Amino acid sequence: MALSQQAVELANGPNLCVVSTLLPSGLIQTQPLWVDSDGEHILINTEIHRKKFKNLEVDPRVTVTILVKDDPFLWSEVRGRVVEIVRGQEARDHIDALAKKYIGVDEYPLPIETERAMLKVAAEQSFDSSG
Amino acid sequence: MALSQQAVELANGPNLCVVSTLLPSGLIQTQPLWVDSDGEHILINTEIHRKKFKNLEVDPRVTVTILVKDDPFLWSEVRGRVVEIVRGQEARDHIDALAKKYIGVDEYPLPIETERAMLKVAAEQSFDSSG
Repeated sequence: MALSQQAVELANGPNLCVVSTLLPSGLIQTQPLWVDSDGEHILINTEIHRKKFKNLEVDPRVTVTILVKDDPFLWSEVRGRVVEIVRGQEARDHIDALAKKYIGVDEYPLPIETERAMLKVAAEQSFDSSG
Repeated sequence: MALSQQAVELANGPNLCVVSTLLPSGLIQTQPLWVDSDGEHILINTEIHRKKFKNLEVDPRVTVTILVKDDPFLWSEVRGRVVEIVRGQEARDHIDALAKKYIGVDEYPLPIETERAMLKVAAEQSFDSSG
């Protein structure tokens, strides 16, 4: 299934998302994160020591809900799975591009503790707010 | 486990949450919602025909992440289960109180399609942003 047009547009804008994954305990982890899209997937970026990354290595089910700060009735929810994990320079370049979008700097300013990973999320269901 | 003090404070403020539940398909549903707290539980309110309500009737696992609009680094994530569902007048009074908090009106202004339900969420893990 293709991403909705609204999800792509919101992901490419200066909007935060929340990423939900499944913990080994069966509880759900939901935390805010930067986001964008290549038009076909939702793209998120994290470090490989993070719990959300470890969750997704075990169980690729993920939901990314993109929120618009000044309009609580406009959002898109993308339910699906991580279909590709990209590491190395491409993941580093991607976090730098996100830093440019969100905070206007050329390079992600925080230390990389382990290694960045870019996660490509394929939609199985794409649900847009009606607002 | 008790809720964190930060989670209670953020839930009692004019902040939106996102609520994550498990769909019968095994995918995760994550959508924004109003929120508050009785100090012991996180309280959310929905209608009984909504998918998130039906999900929680089958599987009470839920995560409520409370976001602060003007500070993307301040949030609290409450992972747990719905331990009580309150319907009838108390649920109606609760949505009216939320309407007062979020949009400054005495009565929830939208039509009730079926019936409101207030869900009490007990924390099993409470995770606060360090920001």
